[in-house]
Amino acid sequence: MEIQSQVLKQDRQGLNSVFKKDAALIEKIETELCNELSDSKGPIREMCNHILNSGGKRLRPLLVLYSGMLFSDPCEKLIKAAAAAELIHMASLVHDDVIDNSMLRRNHPSVNCIWGNNFSVLCGDYLFAKAFGILSRYRLIRSMDFMVEAIQNMCHGEILQAEDRFCQEIDTNTYYDRIAKKTAIFLSCCCKSGACVGGGNSVEIDIMGEYGLNIGLAFQIIDDVLDFCGNPDIMGKPKQEDLSQGNITIPVIFLLTSEKYGSWMREIVRRRDFSEHVLNQVYCALLESGAIDDCMKLAESHIEKAKQCLKYLPDSPHKELLYELADALKTRKS
Amino acid sequence: MEIQSQVLKQDRQGLNSVFKKDAALIEKIETELCNELSDSKGPIREMCNHILNSGGKRLRPLLVLYSGMLFSDPCEKLIKAAAAAELIHMASLVHDDVIDNSMLRRNHPSVNCIWGNNFSVLCGDYLFAKAFGILSRYRLIRSMDFMVEAIQNMCHGEILQAEDRFCQEIDTNTYYDRIAKKTAIFLSCCCKSGACVGGGNSVEIDIMGEYGLNIGLAFQIIDDVLDFCGNPDIMGKPKQEDLSQGNITIPVIFLLTSEKYGSWMREIVRRRDFSEHVLNQVYCALLESGAIDDCMKLAESHIEKAKQCLKYLPDSPHKELLYELADALKTRKS
Repeated sequence: MEIQSQVLKQDRQGLNSVFKKDAALIEKIETELCNELSDSKGPIREMCNHILNSGGKRLRPLLVLYSGMLFSDPCEKLIKAAAAAELIHMASLVHDDVIDNSMLRRNHPSVNCIWGNNFSVLCGDYLFAKAFGILSRYRLIRSMDFMVEAIQNMCHGEILQAEDRFCQEIDTNTYYDRIAKKTAIFLSCCCKSGACVGGGNSVEIDIMGEYGLNIGLAFQIIDDVLDFCGNPDIMGKPKQEDLSQGNITIPVIFLLTSEKYGSWMREIVRRRDFSEHVLNQVYCALLESGAIDDCMKLAESHIEKAKQCLKYLPDSPHKELLYELADALKTRKS
Repeated sequence: MEIQSQVLKQDRQGLNSVFKKDAALIEKIETELCNELSDSKGPIREMCNHILNSGGKRLRPLLVLYSGMLFSDPCEKLIKAAAAAELIHMASLVHDDVIDNSMLRRNHPSVNCIWGNNFSVLCGDYLFAKAFGILSRYRLIRSMDFMVEAIQNMCHGEILQAEDRFCQEIDTNTYYDRIAKKTAIFLSCCCKSGACVGGGNSVEIDIMGEYGLNIGLAFQIIDDVLDFCGNPDIMGKPKQEDLSQGNITIPVIFLLTSEKYGSWMREIVRRRDFSEHVLNQVYCALLESGAIDDCMKLAESHIEKAKQCLKYLPDSPHKELLYELADALKTRKS
């Protein structure tokens, strides 16, 4: 097995502090991903290897596993469903980087930076097919339905984001619709996939879907905050990239709708003036206005909602990890 | 149902003369495709509508249907498997046009020409997910395995083609490996999918796979000949595009390996000199050397092999159509 993963060797922070408790589980996922991609050849093999070695939080496969382990032991099918979710995530990241023309992903050169857009499009397609191949081979039909739902929503979400670039009229509802489609529904589907494979009943699957949705909303809100306030070295991408690219996220929406900063912020978006000086001013306004705090409160409300969902589910060690995972979102740094 | 298809209204030639006999079947596929794409929204809906209205031969879904109808009536599952195959084909065409930066597809502006590369990548992903959604919803597991096999091979085939651009050392084996992966395995998988859904046994499924593979090889060889000799208005793309883009296909391989033209042709490929004057010279050399005739003989040998396969299968009206379809490849113009 030549394809190897560096994720296990990584220093783990924030979210990863939860996952660290389950190193054996992470190792199972890594081994599974490596095995599944080992039969690829030529440049596709090289690209897959590069993606595996670029790390990642493995949040989606762990959500599949933890959700399933509420109801059963980590059987082979659960591991397979988890690996498929990560492969779909990888595929969407590779295509996202093509779409955004991003040259960095997790502090490593992106696939399109090294192999170009053309090979990257094909590599993403290959990874999608690989994921469905696993789900089909192991007859994980319901998981497949959930993954299809996730991909279709991600495509719609990405298009909504592109259509709303530099739009000054974005409100919270529009933002929520976009981040649900772009991020949260996928996490929700991971939880439903896991709960379903693990043997949860339809009510339990729905509850885990609700947990995942709220985790996903909190995750994306915090991601959008970190774009302004995070350490670029830890984030693995430049600071304030969203705003410079015209992606109007919740911190800026709070400024756009504030009495004090509203017209000033609208003018910046209208003029598309994102010089370092202006970005610094926006950063100060975000802190001074309390917009960042408000975003974090919003994220925390979703974390609380997610935790509330867990109350209706049977107690187990993995339920505790799902609580911890929700709380760890608050302190994530990347 | 707002999404409508123009395919039924098209003037049908060559291959289409066979399909014309089964207008009701084509109509079923069109209706199915329109219905499946009717729940899409916004730009994705517009892109899907555009793709449906740009026509196409619907060769893949018809291969699924005819292969299935050797063994059963055209049940709902067979129609669904056929629609899924066409959606995967559409997805791969949308991504191919991004990869090749093609502005024309079937005489219509390509999706990337109108909506740009970014939306096109997402539209392709959406169509892939849609196809797997159908296969999953109707529990067409074996068909899913075949479609996964097809997509993975197409990705590898496209990458092989990209890697071999402007290469003067391509031989017939390399070419065959590439066109099998890029085209023929998909057609083979369509036949296997149909035969499987229709209830063929494992031997019959394999035989139909062999039929599809040979149909696919013949189809691609003739496609590569038509790139040099076809009418660009009928083809819907510029003439001699393959060579100008460095894609060394079988007619040129025959020149590269001929005693008379070998070194001359290698020099052209090496210098990447594809002015109109040079392309005209290549065209004359292809005719004069007999390379075009040799290509057609090769294609005919695969058509014969495909027809031989059918001998081992039960007689039925659709078996006759599969014979006719094979023969119609020889006279196809687009």
